Amino acid sequence: MRYIDEKVIEKIALGAAVLGTGGGGDPYIGKLMAKEAIRKYGPVKLITIDELKDDQLVVPVSGMGAPTVLIEKIPSELEITAPLEALEKVIGKKVDVVMPIEIGGVNSLYPIIAAAKKGLPMLDADAMGRAFPEAQMVSFYLDGFEPSTVAMADEKGNTVLFHPKDGLWAERLARAVTIEMGGSSSVSDYLLYGHEIKTTAIPNTLTLAEKIGGFLLENKSEGYHRVQKMLEKLKGYRLFEGKIVDIERRLSGGFTRGCAKFEGIRDDQGKTFTVFFQNEHLVAKEGNRLLCSTPDLIAILDAETGFPITTERMKYGSRVLVVAFPCHEKWRTLKGIETAGPRYFGYDFDYKPLEELQREREVCID
Amino acid sequence: MRYIDEKVIEKIALGAAVLGTGGGGDPYIGKLMAKEAIRKYGPVKLITIDELKDDQLVVPVSGMGAPTVLIEKIPSELEITAPLEALEKVIGKKVDVVMPIEIGGVNSLYPIIAAAKKGLPMLDADAMGRAFPEAQMVSFYLDGFEPSTVAMADEKGNTVLFHPKDGLWAERLARAVTIEMGGSSSVSDYLLYGHEIKTTAIPNTLTLAEKIGGFLLENKSEGYHRVQKMLEKLKGYRLFEGKIVDIERRLSGGFTRGCAKFEGIRDDQGKTFTVFFQNEHLVAKEGNRLLCSTPDLIAILDAETGFPITTERMKYGSRVLVVAFPCHEKWRTLKGIETAGPRYFGYDFDYKPLEELQREREVCID
Repeated sequence: MRYIDEKVIEKIALGAAVLGTGGGGDPYIGKLMAKEAIRKYGPVKLITIDELKDDQLVVPVSGMGAPTVLIEKIPSELEITAPLEALEKVIGKKVDVVMPIEIGGVNSLYPIIAAAKKGLPMLDADAMGRAFPEAQMVSFYLDGFEPSTVAMADEKGNTVLFHPKDGLWAERLARAVTIEMGGSSSVSDYLLYGHEIKTTAIPNTLTLAEKIGGFLLENKSEGYHRVQKMLEKLKGYRLFEGKIVDIERRLSGGFTRGCAKFEGIRDDQGKTFTVFFQNEHLVAKEGNRLLCSTPDLIAILDAETGFPITTERMKYGSRVLVVAFPCHEKWRTLKGIETAGPRYFGYDFDYKPLEELQREREVCID
Repeated sequence: MRYIDEKVIEKIALGAAVLGTGGGGDPYIGKLMAKEAIRKYGPVKLITIDELKDDQLVVPVSGMGAPTVLIEKIPSELEITAPLEALEKVIGKKVDVVMPIEIGGVNSLYPIIAAAKKGLPMLDADAMGRAFPEAQMVSFYLDGFEPSTVAMADEKGNTVLFHPKDGLWAERLARAVTIEMGGSSSVSDYLLYGHEIKTTAIPNTLTLAEKIGGFLLENKSEGYHRVQKMLEKLKGYRLFEGKIVDIERRLSGGFTRGCAKFEGIRDDQGKTFTVFFQNEHLVAKEGNRLLCSTPDLIAILDAETGFPITTERMKYGSRVLVVAFPCHEKWRTLKGIETAGPRYFGYDFDYKPLEELQREREVCID
């Protein structure tokens, strides 16, 4: 057990935006809200999965919607805890521990705000080990748990409770409500007990985000060297360095969808690259060659500072370093690939692990 | 108190489709389901508002969505009672009486199915005195009651509970969920106690529907004479007799929207008429002259049988008699007209009572 203070928040926000692969919501807004909550209510206890008791009720606290909406429609503190409170009322039991559903800019920080306000500990784990755009893309779903009750709220004071048929219907109904609520909402789903969480959550991911944030903040070297420690830690790869020459971004089906096109710079001079996204980055290509695809992680970093750039903040002319990391092994199972692999998102190719694609690329370059 | 048997259902289905002004769902499907429920569970007690005890909890049972969807996506018995059961669970109290939210083909019959299945009495009253397309168009809303909890379900097993900010948000969120559920759903909203219902519900509307159905079934005379008794009872007017020469009907925003064009026949030879609808008929015109508009009632009847034709059943070439009735006085208040008058539906003219429009028309004809 340790405490999350303002310094830790700074690092988590940065590192989580890397693991958020462009999604999970803008870290700046989440950071301001989390810091404010800690100033108001005091620091938050972060507990490890090992410290979790078997009979403790754990509830994820998260935001749903399009990141492009979130930067203009700022959530309220009330909105973030309303779903949790609605769940407590309907199950007639208090929540013991909150956790992030994913690691991403806002969504790693929302639970800190809820934990501070409710005086609850926060779990150092999540259900993706990264960020994904849809609600059923969680380890809980892969491991056969169903969201028996899903609670949602908006900043206007609306609360909604679902008893969905399954995880896919939870996503469909919650997305429809999120769109009607104005494009963003707060959500708590998958009530699980400690003994269940221990079998299915992805542990220590907040600490991992904090470490990565720390590397980026502490290291003052330039460009690629700045991210070297991070790549080593995450067993990651440099995909390319480039300048954004075109960016298509639209709000569709409640998501921020589109693609960014890059012209290579420095070592990649003369090459062209594309990154496709749906809230999160899904596919990276050099010309027609696949470099990396979901469920593996693609992060777009500022070429100078190494800081992550979320999908909604990408701008024409930005110079970026694009890196990739292998996803958690749960996503490399059959069900994992079926749930969040390229074919689920409508791409007409099979998933190949990042490491394999990189080996092929090296052979090709030689 | 009296019992609803299969004969009564036959009459209610017919009369309610007249008062449903083209909406409220196809009466044929509702009739089959209600008869089946009574055969399975026994006849249903129909109680008057006077017989209602002040502390009895009354819940409306209804279907939401586009009537064009309902005739292909038949609801299940389970779906109809699921919202009521979800409400009971969340408020920790049993429902004492069910009621229809509106008078219209399916929506007068849904509560009979629920009442039969749950062994509950049904109230001889509704919250519109007709059918309207949107959830906030109820006397409860006009009288300042808010839907504290709204429950919904579909045939797939999904259940949703809302705590909406107000009646308008109840409509918006429920409509979004209904669309995602496939275009139709079942809904229970506005939990009210007997003493509240007595101040706000529109009484004896099922008995009224039954009487009108009786007139239509018993009278064997032709055309206009067949509907004369009904017009007298409802203080209504014959608007025109015509043949459908064009029908535009589309599914938009979860509603069946469109308009029907008519060429006058018999006394109306040489004239053209139009009826605009959004689930329910909203506006009737002769050329450019307004004949009747919401919240007053417009009913399209088969010219030969006098039986009502719902919006989704209108066909090119049908010969029809179009009649109109004054709405309940609650709809003629400022809030009533603001909530369900022509301007709410996007028409650029003020509401004029049917009687006034008819007086003007007679003067004009003389």
